[in-house]
Amino acid sequence: MKRRQFLKLAGAGGGAAAGAVAFAAPAIAQAEPAVRWRLASSAPKSLATVLGAAEYVARRVADATDQKFQIKAFAADEIVPQFKVLDAVQHGEVELGQSFSYYFIGKDPTLAFDAALPWGLNTRQQVAWITRGGGLELLREVFRDYNIYNIPAGNTGAQMGGWFRKEVRSLDELKGLKFRIGGWAGTVLSRIGVVPQQIPIPGIVPALASGAIDAAEWVGPYDDEKLGFNTAAKYYYYPGWWEGSTQFSVYVNLDRWRTLPKSYQAILELACAEAYSWSLAKYDVDNPAAMNRLLAGGTLLRSFGDDILQASFNAAFELYAETAAKNARFSKLYESWKSFREDSRLWLKVVEQSYDNFAYPRAVPKPKS
Amino acid sequence: MKRRQFLKLAGAGGGAAAGAVAFAAPAIAQAEPAVRWRLASSAPKSLATVLGAAEYVARRVADATDQKFQIKAFAADEIVPQFKVLDAVQHGEVELGQSFSYYFIGKDPTLAFDAALPWGLNTRQQVAWITRGGGLELLREVFRDYNIYNIPAGNTGAQMGGWFRKEVRSLDELKGLKFRIGGWAGTVLSRIGVVPQQIPIPGIVPALASGAIDAAEWVGPYDDEKLGFNTAAKYYYYPGWWEGSTQFSVYVNLDRWRTLPKSYQAILELACAEAYSWSLAKYDVDNPAAMNRLLAGGTLLRSFGDDILQASFNAAFELYAETAAKNARFSKLYESWKSFREDSRLWLKVVEQSYDNFAYPRAVPKPKS
Repeated sequence: MKRRQFLKLAGAGGGAAAGAVAFAAPAIAQAEPAVRWRLASSAPKSLATVLGAAEYVARRVADATDQKFQIKAFAADEIVPQFKVLDAVQHGEVELGQSFSYYFIGKDPTLAFDAALPWGLNTRQQVAWITRGGGLELLREVFRDYNIYNIPAGNTGAQMGGWFRKEVRSLDELKGLKFRIGGWAGTVLSRIGVVPQQIPIPGIVPALASGAIDAAEWVGPYDDEKLGFNTAAKYYYYPGWWEGSTQFSVYVNLDRWRTLPKSYQAILELACAEAYSWSLAKYDVDNPAAMNRLLAGGTLLRSFGDDILQASFNAAFELYAETAAKNARFSKLYESWKSFREDSRLWLKVVEQSYDNFAYPRAVPKPKS
Repeated sequence: MKRRQFLKLAGAGGGAAAGAVAFAAPAIAQAEPAVRWRLASSAPKSLATVLGAAEYVARRVADATDQKFQIKAFAADEIVPQFKVLDAVQHGEVELGQSFSYYFIGKDPTLAFDAALPWGLNTRQQVAWITRGGGLELLREVFRDYNIYNIPAGNTGAQMGGWFRKEVRSLDELKGLKFRIGGWAGTVLSRIGVVPQQIPIPGIVPALASGAIDAAEWVGPYDDEKLGFNTAAKYYYYPGWWEGSTQFSVYVNLDRWRTLPKSYQAILELACAEAYSWSLAKYDVDNPAAMNRLLAGGTLLRSFGDDILQASFNAAFELYAETAAKNARFSKLYESWKSFREDSRLWLKVVEQSYDNFAYPRAVPKPKS
C-alpha cells in the first residue's frame, strides 16, 4: 500500500474518531469481552411488538458494544416453553428471558406488580412508581429469590376489554358468560359472576366463533386483528380494566449478570429503557391504524357500564386486601404501590386529565378561509 | 508480586468477566477513545430535574463506556448564556447542549415541535409521534440546518396554568391581565386579550408579589415552590394548556457527532432515552408531594373555565394555520403532527381516558373488617 493511500484510509476510519477527542486522555487498550447470550421470550411471533422489543434490545446492545455483546431472541416455545421462561432463566438454561410477570403469580402473586393488576396503575404511573417511587427496588428483592435481575423493558399501554358475541348492557348480563381470560383478571371476573375459561392461543378464535365461549380478550386492535377476533365476534369492549398498563420485563440470570462487565450491565439496562418507550410508541401508532381498519370492517365499539366497572373495582381491591393479609411480601409491595397510587391519581387528575378531557374530544379546527 | 497473589487478583478482575462468556469469541483488543465533552444547559440550577437529566445522561454514558466518555454538564449561564445554547452548539463552542427548543422559535417556529405548542400533544402522544410517528426524522432535518443532531432527553409532563393574584372566573376576567409568560403561549394569550410580560426568572416572584403583574407561570408544584410563587399569589390554575407536554432535548454539534465511534453514538442516544423516562418519573413523584405541601400552606387550586380553554384552543390553531401558510417547513411538520394527533386522540380517548376517568377519582376502598 502506498503511503498516501494509507493516510487516506486512516483518516476515513479510526483517525476521524481520534480527531473528535477534544480533551483526549491517552487511550488505554482494554478489550471488552465478546458475549453471546440467548433470550427466551414468552411472546409468540404474533405479538410482534413484544417480541420486537426483545429484538430491539438485542440490536441496541450490539450497537453500543461495537457488536461484541450479542443477544439472540427466541419466540415462545422455540427454545423454552412460553410459561417456563422464568424457570429457564432462574436455572441458567438461558441467560435472558422476556415475559409478562403475571404469568407466574402461581409462584407468588407479588410478581403481578411487575406486569399488571386489575384496576392497577396506568402506564404513566407504572413507570413513575418503578423508576422513582421505589417499585423497582422492591421488585428486585422479589426476583432475587428466583436468581433473576429484572429490567422493565416494555409496555403495551392500556388494553382493550375484549370481544363479545352479544352486547353486555349491565352487570346482570355479564353474569354467567364464558369469558376466555386468565390470571387475576379471571379471579376478579369470577367474583362478579363471570365464568373464566383458559384456552391456548390457537383455540381462542375458533371457540369464540362456534359459541363455545361468549367472549375473549387478548391485547388490543393491532394484536387482536392478526388473530382474527373480529371474524368471530362483533362487539369490542373497553376499557380493559384488568390491564390498564401491562409491563413486560427482561429477566437476567443473576449469576450471569454478576459476571458482566459494569459497562455491559449499564448498556443492557439502557437498551431496555429505550425499548420500553419504543414498544409503547409502536403500540400507540399501530393500534389506532388497526382500530380504524376494524371499525371500517364492521366491528362495533362498546364501553362497559359503570356498574360493571364499580363491581370489578371493589372485587379487585378485596382480592388484594385478602392476599396482603396472608402474604407479607405482597403486603410490602402493596403498601408502597397503594400509597404511590393515592398521591399520583390526585395529581394526574388535576394536571393531565383536565388537559386530556378538553383536548381528546376536539379535532383541530378547520382554518378560516 | 507472588504468582498466587497475581492469579487471585486476575480472577477478581477481568477473569470474572471472562468466566461469564458462554460462547466467547476471541476478544480483540480495541481501545475506544477517551472523550471529554462539555454540555451547556438552558436550565438554571433551580430546575433540578431538567439539569439533573443532563447530569443523569453524563453519569450513564460514563457507566456504559467504562468511564471513557466523560460529559460535564453546566447550568444556564455558567459557560453559555441561557438562550444562547443552540448557537453555542451550532458553532462548536461546546460539544453538547440541553434546552427547550421553543426558546428558539425566533429562528424558526418549527423548532417548537421539539418542545411544546399550546394545545399540542400530551406527553404520551409526543413520545409516540417522535419515536414511531415520523416526528424525530422530521425534526432531525430541521436541526441539521443548525449543525445539530438532536436527541429528545426528557419531559416535564403537563404543566400548571400558573399563579394568579385574583380568581379568574371567565374569559372576560382574564382580559387585560398582565401575565408573565413567553413564547407562543404569550402570542396565543395576547389573541384572547391577555397582556404577556417578559420578566427574567429572579424578577418574577417580586413582580407578582408587588402587583406589578397579575399572574405568572413557570412549571409545576415542584419547581414553582422552590421559587416561592406561593408566597406571592394564592390561586394556582390548571391546566397549563400551553404546555400539555414539554420536551427537552440534548443537542450534539453535528461535526462532533460524526466523529464519535458508532458505539458512543448509540450509548449517548440510549442514555438520553433512559433520562427521558427518569425525568418524567421524577416530576411525577416530586410534583404530588410539592402540591400537597402547597395546598397545606394555603394555596387554592382553580381550573380555567371552558370559555377560556375554547378561546385559547381556537386561537392556537389559527396561529398554526397562519404560520403554516407562510413557512413550508412548519407546514410539513404540522401536517404530520396534525394527522398523528387525530388518530391518536381517538384511540387514547377510548382506551386510556375511559380507564383514567374511572380510576383517578377513586381511592382504594377500605378492606371489609
